[in-house]
Amino acid sequence: MVRTWPIAIALNLIAAAAIAEPAAPVSDATQECLDCHSDAQPGLVHDWKTSRHARTTPAQALGRPDAERRMSAAQVPDALRGVAVGCFECHGLNPKAHKDNFEHNGYRINVVVSPADCRTCHPTEVDQYSGSKKAHAWGNLALNPVYSMLVDAVDGVIEVRGRKQRLAQKPASQASRAQTCFACHGTKVEVTGTRKVDTDDGEMTFPILSNWPNQGVGRINPDGSRGACTPCHPRHGFSLEVARKPHTCGQCHLEPDVPAYNVFLESKHGNIYESVGHGYDWDHVPWRVGLDFRAPTCAACHMAGLAKPDGEAIVARSHDFGARIWVRLFGLVVSHPQPKTGQTHIIKNADGLPLPATFAGKPAAGFLIDDAEQASRKAEMSKVCAGCHTGRWVEGHFAAMDAAIAEADQMVHAATALVAAAWKRKRADKGNPFDEWIERQWVRQWLFYANSVRYAAAMGGPDYATFKNGWFYLSENLHKMRDWLSKKGR
Amino acid sequence: MVRTWPIAIALNLIAAAAIAEPAAPVSDATQECLDCHSDAQPGLVHDWKTSRHARTTPAQALGRPDAERRMSAAQVPDALRGVAVGCFECHGLNPKAHKDNFEHNGYRINVVVSPADCRTCHPTEVDQYSGSKKAHAWGNLALNPVYSMLVDAVDGVIEVRGRKQRLAQKPASQASRAQTCFACHGTKVEVTGTRKVDTDDGEMTFPILSNWPNQGVGRINPDGSRGACTPCHPRHGFSLEVARKPHTCGQCHLEPDVPAYNVFLESKHGNIYESVGHGYDWDHVPWRVGLDFRAPTCAACHMAGLAKPDGEAIVARSHDFGARIWVRLFGLVVSHPQPKTGQTHIIKNADGLPLPATFAGKPAAGFLIDDAEQASRKAEMSKVCAGCHTGRWVEGHFAAMDAAIAEADQMVHAATALVAAAWKRKRADKGNPFDEWIERQWVRQWLFYANSVRYAAAMGGPDYATFKNGWFYLSENLHKMRDWLSKKGR
Amino acid sequence: MVRTWPIAIALNLIAAAAIAEPAAPVSDATQECLDCHSDAQPGLVHDWKTSRHARTTPAQALGRPDAERRMSAAQVPDALRGVAVGCFECHGLNPKAHKDNFEHNGYRINVVVSPADCRTCHPTEVDQYSGSKKAHAWGNLALNPVYSMLVDAVDGVIEVRGRKQRLAQKPASQASRAQTCFACHGTKVEVTGTRKVDTDDGEMTFPILSNWPNQGVGRINPDGSRGACTPCHPRHGFSLEVARKPHTCGQCHLEPDVPAYNVFLESKHGNIYESVGHGYDWDHVPWRVGLDFRAPTCAACHMAGLAKPDGEAIVARSHDFGARIWVRLFGLVVSHPQPKTGQTHIIKNADGLPLPATFAGKPAAGFLIDDAEQASRKAEMSKVCAGCHTGRWVEGHFAAMDAAIAEADQMVHAATALVAAAWKRKRADKGNPFDEWIERQWVRQWLFYANSVRYAAAMGGPDYATFKNGWFYLSENLHKMRDWLSKKGR
Repeated sequence: MVRTWPIAIALNLIAAAAIAEPAAPVSDATQECLDCHSDAQPGLVHDWKTSRHARTTPAQALGRPDAERRMSAAQVPDALRGVAVGCFECHGLNPKAHKDNFEHNGYRINVVVSPADCRTCHPTEVDQYSGSKKAHAWGNLALNPVYSMLVDAVDGVIEVRGRKQRLAQKPASQASRAQTCFACHGTKVEVTGTRKVDTDDGEMTFPILSNWPNQGVGRINPDGSRGACTPCHPRHGFSLEVARKPHTCGQCHLEPDVPAYNVFLESKHGNIYESVGHGYDWDHVPWRVGLDFRAPTCAACHMAGLAKPDGEAIVARSHDFGARIWVRLFGLVVSHPQPKTGQTHIIKNADGLPLPATFAGKPAAGFLIDDAEQASRKAEMSKVCAGCHTGRWVEGHFAAMDAAIAEADQMVHAATALVAAAWKRKRADKGNPFDEWIERQWVRQWLFYANSVRYAAAMGGPDYATFKNGWFYLSENLHKMRDWLSKKGR
Repeated sequence: MVRTWPIAIALNLIAAAAIAEPAAPVSDATQECLDCHSDAQPGLVHDWKTSRHARTTPAQALGRPDAERRMSAAQVPDALRGVAVGCFECHGLNPKAHKDNFEHNGYRINVVVSPADCRTCHPTEVDQYSGSKKAHAWGNLALNPVYSMLVDAVDGVIEVRGRKQRLAQKPASQASRAQTCFACHGTKVEVTGTRKVDTDDGEMTFPILSNWPNQGVGRINPDGSRGACTPCHPRHGFSLEVARKPHTCGQCHLEPDVPAYNVFLESKHGNIYESVGHGYDWDHVPWRVGLDFRAPTCAACHMAGLAKPDGEAIVARSHDFGARIWVRLFGLVVSHPQPKTGQTHIIKNADGLPLPATFAGKPAAGFLIDDAEQASRKAEMSKVCAGCHTGRWVEGHFAAMDAAIAEADQMVHAATALVAAAWKRKRADKGNPFDEWIERQWVRQWLFYANSVRYAAAMGGPDYATFKNGWFYLSENLHKMRDWLSKKGR
Repeated sequence: MVRTWPIAIALNLIAAAAIAEPAAPVSDATQECLDCHSDAQPGLVHDWKTSRHARTTPAQALGRPDAERRMSAAQVPDALRGVAVGCFECHGLNPKAHKDNFEHNGYRINVVVSPADCRTCHPTEVDQYSGSKKAHAWGNLALNPVYSMLVDAVDGVIEVRGRKQRLAQKPASQASRAQTCFACHGTKVEVTGTRKVDTDDGEMTFPILSNWPNQGVGRINPDGSRGACTPCHPRHGFSLEVARKPHTCGQCHLEPDVPAYNVFLESKHGNIYESVGHGYDWDHVPWRVGLDFRAPTCAACHMAGLAKPDGEAIVARSHDFGARIWVRLFGLVVSHPQPKTGQTHIIKNADGLPLPATFAGKPAAGFLIDDAEQASRKAEMSKVCAGCHTGRWVEGHFAAMDAAIAEADQMVHAATALVAAAWKRKRADKGNPFDEWIERQWVRQWLFYANSVRYAAAMGGPDYATFKNGWFYLSENLHKMRDWLSKKGR
């Protein structure tokens, strides 16, 4: 029977009652923040009021059984123990490290709360994260000269010059970089000065931050730390439900380049999530397979601490999101074992390039995890699968995935052979290997089409394997490149 | 814990109880409608029964406090005051104005309920709407000769003729126009005759309507009025929840041409909506930031009346959807200040064309809002942002957006230079500037790719800025056009 | 008011109470299964525990009134009557027919549960399904030599050979076939041997299955039966909600080739589903229009048994998903009346090809339903529409759809004329008509673009009719193909 609006109202009455229950005590400093900001940014403040941070003190959180702990610190500073995790408790931490610290109505406030601050209560999570590719995402792009050429080729303004309509490419501007690649990878946020602003409460002075706002996963913060927690735990609700839902991961991991989100939604796991996910328990720690959720989301397979319905642990939580994966599907330009460290710009392959494999496919083995580590991670992921699938099912699935990865890589090699022929014949200039039309078709082959096939194989998305950026494009693209090389009409 | 079907049943029992509560009294005329149509169109009738229209009388609605009013009329005709807003109350209004009025079992009935009819109870909303680009959407397309060339080039059937396979393009048929552009823009619905139909209740005579059904926002109705309320308040539930959810706006404002919906879903606002929007209060008037919703939807930023949790107003509701926006991201062919009036086909730019700017980018300033009005609207939108964000955050966001808009426009100019070279060299015929292949690549540049970059900048969608119709395509497309010009293989 | 986590907890307490209610008694055999598998695959087992199969015995189900029956069998074997439909009740059926049957801890177990097994309780559903195109989906692709050429052209690995970079295409491998086309169409699952596995409970022997796992709709099962129930009723919850939600159909029927799901989501029906579908009663049988749902999903129009709110039947349930449709929108290469039987690879058209129409558009009339059957099906679908729409509305909608289909077919014919010219001039080799670049553009015309226009017309998706793979691409593509033919630059 269709639920009508009187029912919605009834549910809201229950919700209102819930909100009326006593929250955790608020520190004097935070109360002063709330006095003004409840009026200045009421949505932000109310979001926080619904959060666990507003309803629990660290002392209470420390008292939870180990398996249900959301805090990993054994202890926290006394000043924080007995009060809600409020405005000042976070924005007032480590003031000396923060170049964005400023005087504000008698308090020293940081604009940006960084992982180094969150580490006060969540050290295990921050330490795991800090070793991951995510935490290094800024440098992995900005400090890798090959990738930087791709950024310029994609994002730089192009002018048409002269009688022959020559294309003149500028380097990508700071602005377009921040809106495109570095929106996900994170920007370098620095204090460039201060300025005075007339506010409703009189003149105030604020620091000026470059490349701000940004919530990229590898952001360089004004305290020098790397990374950001807000992309997955957005301001200021810190909702576990948000972090566990695929829409969060899907802000960055989506088609055409990293179609993980899209493939998930089209998979059977996604089908079940979209159909009956409203009945999952999104907040339980640990996350109990079958009882709390029927089919996994991104978080379930890649990072959550999972348990059986009776509470017996299956796998431990990890904030190093690659900890359960062995092969890197994302081809640069082909798939390869996961790097040993999250810092990938230090890699040097046999061609001397900072890439995990040569264009011909030879892995930079010294920088990548070895067979034993690959096997160990595959075993860990298999434990996740075994929550619902038999061993034979899982083995069959991974065997099919391996076959798809190998074939997708072959299709990339074919495209590389064609672009290499164009370079050799001076039909294209390898100076920047990513800017000309024929080069861009090569980029599409590995970045869009082969990735689609590989991610589809990993998670079971038949259309991304076939018609939606998959094999249909892998094969058509080779014919398109080949026709261009032979000047066959087009 | 996964919610099982017994719970669903329990919730339905509550819902059933809710439906049993007394609805508003129904007029005799409407009761006669219901007697037959409850059987003939039971879904339609039941949808209405769950609506506020079926549960409230105008007299009750008029008694609500101002801030909570959903009706803007100060008074309504006596006959309507004390009864539910039922079939005849809407379909029986203004019979003389309606060319689609017909005799039906002793009553004079209009097939189409128009904004002029809804105006009886909602005059402020209809008047605001009537001045908007939406209400003029039919004429803005149909009466603009430049855009009409685009419609023909896109939607006209093409035949292959002769030994040389010449392409012969027909004008777009009425049918394809109604299914494509005018599905959103609205059709011209006219009475073309009457016909007799054998029904279960005997022979009846009905008017024949051209281009019907249609629910485009700028529909020309049989009473001569412009617009339609049903696209956003669909039949016959008139649900505020539907109007406030992004899927409604997303029927027309979606990629590749107007990727507002897609960018929203990929933004942090969309991420939060998709993750925890099930807990929002979708029905409260005014809409209280933080309390009723955690992150905005399209409606929150662009039209809803917003308040702080304590009820203090932030911005007033407007049914002129452009009232809080100053720049028109949608480039024709480049971005420009919003037009002064919703009727854009009357614009004449410096080239004599009915476009808001010349192809070279010079705005038709006399037809566009001035700097003061732009600043005023930006200030209004900034109030919305301030619900959750600090002033520095908001300023940083808009500065980044301005930079992105400027660069996207530069990339359009580059494409315009290339297509202009093709026209000059007689490689393409400017007669219809939108039909040939090279011209279509130019259209893609401004209509698909530059729009994606601009909308992504406005709402924070990193992938639409980059790989999904964004910069990757903006730059590749210039190389593709340039290669074609130089006959470089392709 | 935003629902906070304490409310979520409250709801979970209610849910927990619901789960505590007595389930159906479990057979001894199934209890033995549960004893181990509750630990080995706890998610799978818990999913089943929430299912109707775990909570109802066939005897109880047989006692339901006819209109509410979910079982179609008049009787079931005595051993099954009084116990829950558990592990052994399904995996132990028809052991002699199952080549995948194996000895497992004293029981004879089938790995794969097939439609022939489900038929024990659901004969009407299985018999309807067995005649449908879905049940024949494996053979319709694998046994059709024309389509098999398309599979090879799309999915086969291509190598670049020699100094002239010749493209050498291999046949599509078993692996890539299983991950792409046959992921939806279904694979042929055969027992290729057995192997011993060390498990936590000692060494066990399991059959080895080829092309497994797979859940395609036309799967060939180890008992020789065709089809699979799990694609729509996924393991092991057998949730009606999942089957009725569009995300299930959308795993296979999605853009770019069959954009039914995408068009639905963008339609007004989809808009309403996405906005207020959370309030539908997804479990009621029959499905009552207006009362249980406000706007239809795929299942509502194409297969569900529908009733009026008072229970009066509108249309009967059918598991032959084509039973209410008369025209096949999916163009191969143009639209045509539905085939008489689900087995389409037996068709022979006037050109001698196993296609429902010639490339020139002449239908293989002897294999397709006649005018009377088409009219009968249209009348049946019109009853569905009449749940909410008047007869004039419905007629107007279908007339517009017919016009769009005819025009889309004309646009396919134009592309066919261009590719035929390429073949005639030896610019392309018709040997495999789907592999070369110009041929692939022809495939795009009918498989991606014309399909988008037709599905958009059928369900009201304005963007898929226009810019999203619709008319914009239909017309641009002809110019692209024409330019190639004339070697005009590209």
